[in-house]
Amino acid sequence: MAERIESPDVSAVVLAAGRGSRLRSGCKPLAVVGGLSLLERTIATARAAGLRRIVVVVDRLDGPVATFCRERVAGVELAWARDHARGNGASVAAGLAHAGGRCLVMMADHLHEPCSVERLLRAEGELVIGVDSRPGSVDLADATLLRYEDGAVAEIGKHLARHDAVEMGLVVCNAAPVVAVADALDGELEFNRIKAAWLEGGGRIDAVDLDGAFWADIDTPRERRRAIGDLLDRRGAKAGDGPVARVLNRPVSRLVSRPLLATRIGPNPVTLANLGLLVLSAALLALGARHDGLLVAGGVLVQLSSALDGVDGELARVSGRCSPAGAVLDAICDRYGDLAVFVGAAIAVDTSAAWPWAMAAVVANWQLSYLRREHERIAGALPAAHVRWQWSRDVRLLVLAISCVLLHPLWGLLAAAVLGNLDALRRLVALVGVARDEDRELGPEATAGAARRVLGDAGPAGRS
Amino acid sequence: MAERIESPDVSAVVLAAGRGSRLRSGCKPLAVVGGLSLLERTIATARAAGLRRIVVVVDRLDGPVATFCRERVAGVELAWARDHARGNGASVAAGLAHAGGRCLVMMADHLHEPCSVERLLRAEGELVIGVDSRPGSVDLADATLLRYEDGAVAEIGKHLARHDAVEMGLVVCNAAPVVAVADALDGELEFNRIKAAWLEGGGRIDAVDLDGAFWADIDTPRERRRAIGDLLDRRGAKAGDGPVARVLNRPVSRLVSRPLLATRIGPNPVTLANLGLLVLSAALLALGARHDGLLVAGGVLVQLSSALDGVDGELARVSGRCSPAGAVLDAICDRYGDLAVFVGAAIAVDTSAAWPWAMAAVVANWQLSYLRREHERIAGALPAAHVRWQWSRDVRLLVLAISCVLLHPLWGLLAAAVLGNLDALRRLVALVGVARDEDRELGPEATAGAARRVLGDAGPAGRS
Repeated sequence: MAERIESPDVSAVVLAAGRGSRLRSGCKPLAVVGGLSLLERTIATARAAGLRRIVVVVDRLDGPVATFCRERVAGVELAWARDHARGNGASVAAGLAHAGGRCLVMMADHLHEPCSVERLLRAEGELVIGVDSRPGSVDLADATLLRYEDGAVAEIGKHLARHDAVEMGLVVCNAAPVVAVADALDGELEFNRIKAAWLEGGGRIDAVDLDGAFWADIDTPRERRRAIGDLLDRRGAKAGDGPVARVLNRPVSRLVSRPLLATRIGPNPVTLANLGLLVLSAALLALGARHDGLLVAGGVLVQLSSALDGVDGELARVSGRCSPAGAVLDAICDRYGDLAVFVGAAIAVDTSAAWPWAMAAVVANWQLSYLRREHERIAGALPAAHVRWQWSRDVRLLVLAISCVLLHPLWGLLAAAVLGNLDALRRLVALVGVARDEDRELGPEATAGAARRVLGDAGPAGRS
Repeated sequence: MAERIESPDVSAVVLAAGRGSRLRSGCKPLAVVGGLSLLERTIATARAAGLRRIVVVVDRLDGPVATFCRERVAGVELAWARDHARGNGASVAAGLAHAGGRCLVMMADHLHEPCSVERLLRAEGELVIGVDSRPGSVDLADATLLRYEDGAVAEIGKHLARHDAVEMGLVVCNAAPVVAVADALDGELEFNRIKAAWLEGGGRIDAVDLDGAFWADIDTPRERRRAIGDLLDRRGAKAGDGPVARVLNRPVSRLVSRPLLATRIGPNPVTLANLGLLVLSAALLALGARHDGLLVAGGVLVQLSSALDGVDGELARVSGRCSPAGAVLDAICDRYGDLAVFVGAAIAVDTSAAWPWAMAAVVANWQLSYLRREHERIAGALPAAHVRWQWSRDVRLLVLAISCVLLHPLWGLLAAAVLGNLDALRRLVALVGVARDEDRELGPEATAGAARRVLGDAGPAGRS
């Protein structure tokens, strides 16, 4: 990650006074996009760009946004836009008057990347607007357009005959002169009218082209769905996916993740629900010893659980709720869920010959988890080739599911056991290889520290 | 570890010209004590104390010590003591003449701690001797004794009427004046005679009392056995031992480690041998389904393997061969050895009811290994209370062994499964506790980095 420029002297002014009538949800800043409200995402973006002081402009100090901020977002200030009914320019003026000094004005209904904010903060003009000269999927009929002349903004508004760029909803300015321009205006007070008045008064507006950065203005349910899809594309993927997960499972899990990302449901309940689904599959498999139909249903459900196993990770990554606890919970639920499925399949086979294979398959699961951690501890992440091509869990569960659907669960157990242990063997060989390289450091031309290890003074423990 | 003072300007002169006729081994400096030759231990001690230049004084440049140094100890210089037959003083003089400057004289048949050398190196006199005013297990009839007067050494020799301390075999001196005193002497030339001549000539000898430091002078097989035992006491123990290991297994493993530590046998062959023993026990248990005698023998062998499981770790720690590769090999051999034993016991039970219990016991083994690594990764070492009181592997194998000897292997499997999973559950609860604490860092008053994680920019991966 590149070095961050902290900008403690700039205050973020977040406009959250709008009602968002077109977006069918009570209050647009609180609409959930990717597991977090738009307001929280905007505040997190400002903080990620190094801003410390955050001022949220609200239409009512006892309204839902103000209450939400007080209850769930620590460390932000509230500013009341008394005459918010005049337009969003009144909110800007109220926020700037509250904050003072140099400010970054942000819209609570826009998604931005922290690096866009950082680039804008580096500009030095008195009024600087973030623009996109090549907007991709923006509704131009609704966007604020700009026209340049001699390197500065010459014209700004929603209906221009000719335009060079689209405004992105990010403005950096000095508060006092902008508030002065706003105070001189009567009647309707949109932010665009303030900017036009600024230009008419001879003021200069600079534009920073953030062309290429991801951003979104969310006004309609369709835009919200598209934003969730964009977030899933950008952050939902995982490098460690096996081949079946990439081709077969991810489309299914994304189908389920999309509606969930419009809610605040976290990844952990989904992880537990997936464990429940695996246990249910296991029960069906076990009952499948008597009824072929249940064995087939169990097999289908095993593959469905495997496909849905990606949902919790997608929710966690898109909503920023990745945590060590979550990852451990996920790994352990996977292990015990698989244990249940393999036991269920062994019962379905109904001869004791199945048990050693089920045990071997289960052992491979845990051994793979354990060896991953050992490899990370001793030699860093697993080699990319291992991660991309492996007989991973998705492959093994699919094989087992197919064998159950074909009413030959023993073959699935056998394949899962062999494939899993082959992968574990590959991981073990790689690990022993790097660990042996480590050992060479203890040669005779050693440093004082290495000599101490030779004497047994500070050797790593680990053996019993 | 405290800060080390590197002493690059002091050369180590290691006396390795003696024959060591009392110690029944070809050549005393090459006698193995704790898996390493005495010579290697002495050189490692000098390097660990920060000395870079090492001069080994030999009686023949084509003898076994010189050959050993050339082949196996990189980066040391050899000095030939032409008239070594006159006594060890001749070797001292030859080594000092070769090294020049300020020197640390070490005996290749003494064991010392690096911190003793460091303390001695801080002294500034022209001739400084490390002494022990409260020698524990030293044979006074054979030791060099000292008597002080006015803070300096007044008398030195093997047969003093009154003495204040015992010489420890560590001397720091300026080479030139000592060589000059030695050159003036004829006939027999022990180091003690040089020191006496130094005193007679009006020279001052300072003594640094290293009272309390571990040291040993190894002349006889008995002293060698005692030194190995001391090394085992000081470095063989492991913090993570379970209760059965502490009380029952360690005495057995030390019994085997002692003779092995007089050889160069490394820990890895022992680890593999122990796996072989576990597999043999498993085979006996499996055959025990038909013959009770084999079941009893298998049970006894399981406990013996468990007891001997400590040998590889003792060898590794005492001989300084702890390595990540070794620890991984040990853990994996333990897991597969236990797998074999539990499968053997399940076969011995001879009903399919045994398999789920065997599987549960095996799962607990791997889960415990995995959770240990996860805990270390997320929250550091396991809590001391967990390590000291646990239903650890030693306990579970003893329970299984007893149940086999009593011809009820199912009860042993059941107990191992329940106890192992209880321990795994305790480890899981502790881990989830610390992991939840970690999560709190992601609260709203977060740093820029934490805000980035909220946006999903740099969250830890790990979920599928």
